[in-house]
Amino acid sequence: MTRDTRYDVLFEPVRIGPKTMRNRFYATPHGSGLESAAPAGEAYFRGMKAAGGWAVVNTGQTQISPEFDYTGFLVVSKIWDESDVRNWSLMTDRIHEAGSLAGIELATTGSGVTGFQSRMPARSVSSVVDDHFWMGASYEMDKQDIRRLQEEYVAAAQRSLAAGFDIVNVHGSEGWSIFSMFLMPHYNHRTDEYGGSLENRARIWLETLEMVREAVGDQCAIAARHCIDALRGPSGVEVDEAGVGFIELADHLVDLWDVQVGGEDRNHWSKDVGPSRFYGENFQGEWVKKVRPHTSKPIVAVGRFTSPDSMIAVIKSGQQDIIGAARATISDPFLPNKIDEGRIEEIRECIGCNVCVSRVAAVGPIICTQNPTIGEEYRRGWHPEKYVAARTSDKSVLIVGGGPAGLECGIVLARQGVEHVHVVEAERQVGGHFRWVPRLPGLAEWIRMVDYRKTVAEGLRNLALVTKKRLSVEDVLDYGADRVIVATGSFWAADGLNNVTQEPIPGADASAPHIYTPEQVMLGEEGVEGERILIYDCDGYFMGVSLAERLALEGKIVSIVTPFPAVAPYLDYTGEIQMMVPRLHELGVEMTAGHAVDSIQGSTIRAHLGEYPAREAAWEADAIILVTQRLPNTDLYQALAADPGRLAEAGIERLYRIGDCVAPRQQVADAIFDGHRLAREIDSEDPMTPRPWIRENRVLGATNSDYDGVVGEDVPVKPSSDLSEVR
Amino acid sequence: MTRDTRYDVLFEPVRIGPKTMRNRFYATPHGSGLESAAPAGEAYFRGMKAAGGWAVVNTGQTQISPEFDYTGFLVVSKIWDESDVRNWSLMTDRIHEAGSLAGIELATTGSGVTGFQSRMPARSVSSVVDDHFWMGASYEMDKQDIRRLQEEYVAAAQRSLAAGFDIVNVHGSEGWSIFSMFLMPHYNHRTDEYGGSLENRARIWLETLEMVREAVGDQCAIAARHCIDALRGPSGVEVDEAGVGFIELADHLVDLWDVQVGGEDRNHWSKDVGPSRFYGENFQGEWVKKVRPHTSKPIVAVGRFTSPDSMIAVIKSGQQDIIGAARATISDPFLPNKIDEGRIEEIRECIGCNVCVSRVAAVGPIICTQNPTIGEEYRRGWHPEKYVAARTSDKSVLIVGGGPAGLECGIVLARQGVEHVHVVEAERQVGGHFRWVPRLPGLAEWIRMVDYRKTVAEGLRNLALVTKKRLSVEDVLDYGADRVIVATGSFWAADGLNNVTQEPIPGADASAPHIYTPEQVMLGEEGVEGERILIYDCDGYFMGVSLAERLALEGKIVSIVTPFPAVAPYLDYTGEIQMMVPRLHELGVEMTAGHAVDSIQGSTIRAHLGEYPAREAAWEADAIILVTQRLPNTDLYQALAADPGRLAEAGIERLYRIGDCVAPRQQVADAIFDGHRLAREIDSEDPMTPRPWIRENRVLGATNSDYDGVVGEDVPVKPSSDLSEVR
Repeated sequence: MTRDTRYDVLFEPVRIGPKTMRNRFYATPHGSGLESAAPAGEAYFRGMKAAGGWAVVNTGQTQISPEFDYTGFLVVSKIWDESDVRNWSLMTDRIHEAGSLAGIELATTGSGVTGFQSRMPARSVSSVVDDHFWMGASYEMDKQDIRRLQEEYVAAAQRSLAAGFDIVNVHGSEGWSIFSMFLMPHYNHRTDEYGGSLENRARIWLETLEMVREAVGDQCAIAARHCIDALRGPSGVEVDEAGVGFIELADHLVDLWDVQVGGEDRNHWSKDVGPSRFYGENFQGEWVKKVRPHTSKPIVAVGRFTSPDSMIAVIKSGQQDIIGAARATISDPFLPNKIDEGRIEEIRECIGCNVCVSRVAAVGPIICTQNPTIGEEYRRGWHPEKYVAARTSDKSVLIVGGGPAGLECGIVLARQGVEHVHVVEAERQVGGHFRWVPRLPGLAEWIRMVDYRKTVAEGLRNLALVTKKRLSVEDVLDYGADRVIVATGSFWAADGLNNVTQEPIPGADASAPHIYTPEQVMLGEEGVEGERILIYDCDGYFMGVSLAERLALEGKIVSIVTPFPAVAPYLDYTGEIQMMVPRLHELGVEMTAGHAVDSIQGSTIRAHLGEYPAREAAWEADAIILVTQRLPNTDLYQALAADPGRLAEAGIERLYRIGDCVAPRQQVADAIFDGHRLAREIDSEDPMTPRPWIRENRVLGATNSDYDGVVGEDVPVKPSSDLSEVR
Repeated sequence: MTRDTRYDVLFEPVRIGPKTMRNRFYATPHGSGLESAAPAGEAYFRGMKAAGGWAVVNTGQTQISPEFDYTGFLVVSKIWDESDVRNWSLMTDRIHEAGSLAGIELATTGSGVTGFQSRMPARSVSSVVDDHFWMGASYEMDKQDIRRLQEEYVAAAQRSLAAGFDIVNVHGSEGWSIFSMFLMPHYNHRTDEYGGSLENRARIWLETLEMVREAVGDQCAIAARHCIDALRGPSGVEVDEAGVGFIELADHLVDLWDVQVGGEDRNHWSKDVGPSRFYGENFQGEWVKKVRPHTSKPIVAVGRFTSPDSMIAVIKSGQQDIIGAARATISDPFLPNKIDEGRIEEIRECIGCNVCVSRVAAVGPIICTQNPTIGEEYRRGWHPEKYVAARTSDKSVLIVGGGPAGLECGIVLARQGVEHVHVVEAERQVGGHFRWVPRLPGLAEWIRMVDYRKTVAEGLRNLALVTKKRLSVEDVLDYGADRVIVATGSFWAADGLNNVTQEPIPGADASAPHIYTPEQVMLGEEGVEGERILIYDCDGYFMGVSLAERLALEGKIVSIVTPFPAVAPYLDYTGEIQMMVPRLHELGVEMTAGHAVDSIQGSTIRAHLGEYPAREAAWEADAIILVTQRLPNTDLYQALAADPGRLAEAGIERLYRIGDCVAPRQQVADAIFDGHRLAREIDSEDPMTPRPWIRENRVLGATNSDYDGVVGEDVPVKPSSDLSEVR
C-alpha cells in the first residue's frame, strides 16, 4: 500500500541546525523505567521507535552527574562518564541504523533530589526545600557553583557527542529542572544577576546554551525543552513572560524548541501527559500556537496525536513544525511507517490511560495497554510487528473468552501462523469487562483497546471470532481443538471480600436489592435505586471513583469510603487524581479515606479509622456498591484440569489459562500481556511458566558474552532482525 | 586489652546441625538496599560483619525465583540462577575468610508482590488481594503449584550450597512469607489438607523443610525464621498456637530457630525493628522466652542488644542461645571483637533511630547515623575501623563547630594522623542541635551519637575539643590553622519559609512573643506560654510530632497542621508512625493533614486544603510553633570565602564547609556522613567534591576488569585489607 498524498507534508524533511530530520515525527524525551539500569533494554526500546519511522528518538531525562540523584522516586538515566557513553552507543547505533537521529535530554533537577545514592546535597536556585522532594537537601548556588555546573553541562554534551547523539537537548521544563526553577520567581528568590528580571532569571540557561553550543554546536543540533506555561496557579503564574520571553532571548542559541505545558507539581505535572479522561488530542495546542511569532526555529510539541489528520492540521496551521509524541510512540512505535504505507487502520492508537506513566512513577519498567511488547524488545526479544512462526502451527487452538487476554492471545497465535484459532465469547460483544468500562465517564477512548483488536482479529483469515456462545465443559471437550486456552476473566466479589480484613464483610451480599457490584451497576437494566449511594472502594484504581462520578452525574448523593490514606491512590501514579478529586468535589461527592468497613446492616455501613478500631464511623445509604476486589472465574478451567483422562479422550493435548481467570490484574495491560506472552511462548515446554528473560544484571568477574540469553545472564547484543515476519 | 571473663559465655562455640558457630553472635537477615543490584557492595557490606566477629552473617530476604517480585517497593535480593551463585560467592568467600558462617534467607512472599518486573501473578495461599501490596496479583495455589514451589525451594537451596552458604534459612515470618501466610487463618482460607487445623496449615512448610533437608541438610544447617506472635490485633490473634505449635511440629527438621515478633502489616512490622522511641533492649524477650520449652534446638532472637551485660543475661536465663542482631551489626560491625578485646567503651551503640530501615523502605541503600561507612565498604573502600594515613598530616586543621558533622570530621582527621586538629564549639556542650534533640520524649538514646563521639574525641591525643568559644571571622583568621573547615550547622526558619509556598508565611515572625521556632521552645527558659498550641509541620520527620508530644505531656492542648497527606510521613519509613499516631491520639493531640498555612494574624492561623484554595480552614491558638524548614548558618563561611587574599595572608591554605551549614539534612546521618567523607578525602584535589565511587553499573560489552575503580566503572574485587591502620 502507499501513502495518502494528504499526509505527504508529514514526511517532509526538517532541518534543525546541522542535522536533518527525515520526516516530521519526533519521539520526545520520556522516562522508561529501564534507563541506565537496563542499558540494552533501553537501547532496544528506543531503537524500535526509529525502526518504526520516528525521525528523532530521544532518551528520557538524563542526569549529567551523580549530584542530581532521585533514587527511590524514579529509575535514574545517566550520562556521568565513559561507561554511559559506551552504553548509550548501542542506542544511538540502533537509531542510526534505522536512518533516524538520536537526541539526549541533559538534565539537572536542582532541589528535586533524594540523594539516596549520592549522599550529597544538590545545588539549587535558592535555599528552600523542594515542594515535591521534601526529603532532599539542596542549597543556593554561588557563582562558582554556577560556573562549575555549566562546565559539567559542556562535558556531558561532549560525552553525548562521543556516544553518537545528534541532538543535545538542554532541558529546562516541567518545573523540575534547574533552569526552569531559575526562570520562575516562585523558586528564584535571588538578588544577584541571576534573580529578579527575566533577563537575570534566564541568564544561567542562556550562558549554558551558549557554552554548549560553542563546544559542540557545529557537530550536533541544540534543542531546548521549555515550559511555556507552568500552570502554577495562585502561587505563581508566570505564563507568558518567561514562556515566550525566554524563547525570544534564546532563539539564536537554539536549533529546535521543544515546548510543553505544566510544571512539576502535584497539581499540574499531569497536564504534560494529559490522560484521555480529561484531555483530548492536541490538548496543549492553545498554548503551543502562541510560540510561533517569537521564534524562527522549528517547534515541536506533543498532544497525544494518533490521527494523521490532526497532525497535518497542526502543521498546516503553523502551530508547530514537528509532531512530538511520547505515549503514541509507546502504543505504536510503527505509527509513522503505518501512515507512510497507507496502513492507517493498523495503528494501535494510544488510549490515554497512562499506565505507561504510572509504572515509571512507581519505579518500575514501562508497560502499555495497547502494546504488550514495550520494554520487552531486548529482554524477551519481542518485536511489536514481527512474530516467529509457530512450530506447532498445525495444532488448532480454542480460546474460551474474548476479553482482552483472549483476544490478544488469539491474534498473536494467528500472526504466528497457527492455522486454526477460535476465540469463543459468551456475550454478544468481545472485550470482557472492557465492553462496559469505557462507558464510565471520561473513559470512552479506552474502547480503542477492544476496537483495535476486534478489527485486527476480523482481518486474520486463520482466526475465527465467535460470539454469543457460552461453552460448557462438555462443549469444550466436544469442540475438536488440539489445545484449549481458558480466558474466562474475573468478577467483582459479591460479599465484600477485601484486602483489609482478608474476609467478606458481614452483611455484605449483592443479592440484596440495595447492594450492588460494579457489574450490577453497569449491566443492570434499571440503574441504581435510591438517592444516597455509598461506594466502598478497596481497589484503589478507577472503578470506585468512576462509578461515583457516573452516579453523581445522574443526580445521586454519593459518598466514597476507602481504607487507603487517600481516594484512588493508583490515580496518583497515572496523573489522573489531580483532576479527579476536584471533579468529585464539584459533583458533591463526599470522600472519606482511611476507613475500613466492618459491617453492613440494612442501610447502615459501619467502619473504623485505620488501625484504631475504637474510632468508629457509620453511614446511612439507600444503596451500597462493593468495589472491594475481583475474583477469577476458575470453574471451567478447574473442571477441565481435574480430569486429564477426559481431556486426552477428547483429543485436547494441552490446557492453559491466561489473564484475569488466573488472577485478576489491576491494570488490564497485565492481562493482555499474559495472553500475548503465552502465545509468543506457545512452543516452549511449559508455556504457562514464562520463559527466562535477559536480566541485565551485573555478574561479578564475568564478561557479558560469557552469559548468553538466559535469565540471570547477559548478552551484549541480540539481533531481532532475524525474526521472520508472519503477518 | 583482653576480654572480661564475665563475657566468656558469649564466645563459646554453638553447634547448629553440621556446622559450628565460633561464638554466639549472629547477624540476622535484613535488607540492605544493595542486594542483587550491587552484588560486590552487598558482599563487602555483609563481609565486614564477619571481619568484626559475627560468627554467622546472613543475607536479607532472598527471592528464589522471579515470580515473587516486589520491584518498586524494595530492592530485590535474588538467588534465581547461576549468575546469582557467582555473585553470592564473593560474599561467602569474604565471610569464610573471616572464619564465620554464611547464611541465606530463602523467601517467597505469596500475595506480597508488585510484579512490575516479572509481569506475572504470584502463587499464594488464597485468592485475596494482599493487605499491603494492593497493586499486585496473586492466586490460590493448587497442589501441583505447591509441589512445583517446593521443588523451586530445593533448587534454590542447591544453588545456595553452590554459592558457599553454610546455613539455609527457610523463611516463614513477618507475615510476609508464603509459609507464615499458610500458618495464619487470617490469610489461609483453604479447605483442603493445607488449610484448617494447625497441622494442615503447617503442612506446606513442613514438607518444604523436609525436602530441603533431604537435599542439602547433610552439607549445611537448616534454619527457620519463624514468627512466634504476629500481633495482628483484632483481625487474627494466633499467638501461641502457630507460634510454639509450629516449633514443636518442625523441631526435628530444623537445626536453628530464628524467632521474631510482629507480622508485616502497617500496625506491627515495626515491632520487629522496634525503634528506641518506643522499645528498649531485649524488647522481644517476653515472647522469646516462651520458646525454650518447645524445642531442643538453639534459639536466636534479636533485641537491639548493644550491652554485653544484657547479652549474657539472656543467654544465662535460657531465653535464647544466640545473640541475634541486625541494627547493632550496622551501627558497629566490630561489636563482637570489641567485647572480645575488652574495648567495650569503643562500641558504637545503635541509637535505635531506624534510619537504616527507613532508607531501605524508601528503596535506597542502607545508611546509619552512628556508622557513616555502612554501604561504603566496597564502593568507596571504607573500613569502619581502619583509616588511610593522611599525606598532609602536618597541616593543622581548625573545625568551626562541634555538631555532628564537625565532631565526626575531626575524629576521622585525627585518626588519619593529622597532627593538630581543633574542633571549636561556641556552646558549652558539643553536639549541635543534638544537644537538645535527645531531650524530646522518647529520643533519649539518640544522645549516644554525641556521647560516643565525645568520648572518642577526648581519647585522641591529636584532637583538641574546645567549647564555649564562638569564633568570629577575625578569630578564625588569627587562629593559626593551615586549613579551616566550617561546620556551623543550621537553624529553623523564623518566618515560616516552607516547601509548599516556597515563601515565608505572611505574619509569621518568631520574634513575636507567641510565635516560636523549635529552638525557642527547647532552649528558651520559660517554656511555651498559653494553653492552646498549634504546630505547623512542613518538615515531615520527628520534630513536629515530638514537640507536640512534649507539650501535650506538659498539659497543653496541642494541634498539628501539616501539608502532607498524613502526619510525619518520614516516620512511616522508620516504623515509628505506627506507635506515634496512637500516642498522639491518647494525648489528645488534634491532627489535620493536607493543609497548607496561608497566613498568621495574631492568634489566627489560616490555611487551605491541598490544591483547593477555596476550601479554607482556620484555627485560634495561644502559641504557634513553626516547624517549616531549616536554613544553613552560612555567614562565617561566606565571609571567609569572600576574601581569598585575607585567607592567604592569614596562612589559611584551604577553606571547606560540611554538614548542615552547606544544606540542612533531614537525617543527621547525612550531615555526619558529609563530615566523614570530607575527612576521608582530605588529600584529594578538591575535597568538597566527592571522589568518584564504584557504581556497579552494567557496562555493555565490557568485562568488569576493563573498568577499574572509577565512578561509572567496574572492578571485580577491591581489597580493603591493605589499608594501613592508624588508630
